[in-house]
Amino acid sequence: MKKLSADDIEKKLLRFPDWEYYDNAIHAEFEFDNFKDCFSAMSRIAFECEALNHHPEWSNVYNVLTISLSTHDAGGVTNKDFKLAEAIENIVEPDEE
Amino acid sequence: MKKLSADDIEKKLLRFPDWEYYDNAIHAEFEFDNFKDCFSAMSRIAFECEALNHHPEWSNVYNVLTISLSTHDAGGVTNKDFKLAEAIENIVEPDEE
Repeated sequence: MKKLSADDIEKKLLRFPDWEYYDNAIHAEFEFDNFKDCFSAMSRIAFECEALNHHPEWSNVYNVLTISLSTHDAGGVTNKDFKLAEAIENIVEPDEE
Repeated sequence: MKKLSADDIEKKLLRFPDWEYYDNAIHAEFEFDNFKDCFSAMSRIAFECEALNHHPEWSNVYNVLTISLSTHDAGGVTNKDFKLAEAIENIVEPDEE
């Protein structure tokens, strides 16, 4: 899995308006109605992570979920990160599909 | 729920060797065998949080879970935080009971 260039990442991010690229990773923050809704989304995301064998750096405070994606072995952002970002979007904002 | 003094917190922490007090909160880091084990513990902790109506600031990277507890309304650490810390310990390290 090859590290993508900053240009490639910015081009791909046009399809991912919730995500930003900095510090060699892509980042997003999602807000839910409450903790239960937030953790339910996290559970669904956790299954995707296992299926893709790719795992985020993520934090939660009550109804807010912060996610950073990068590919450790490649030293930056790869297509694996965008695959997981897409899976996350489908879980978090299915209406925007 | 009253904010505990630093002295009270340090005394209580004698029973919680995994936890440290700084930045007006108590903090712990737990390591698991893998992501699945880590997220399973997080799920069990999430149910306790809902039951206690008290929620952590927590982060996960693969097999590592970092948790910070404080009581926002009290502006510091209260007995609520120790109640949740105890519930977390019972989930994460049941053998140490």
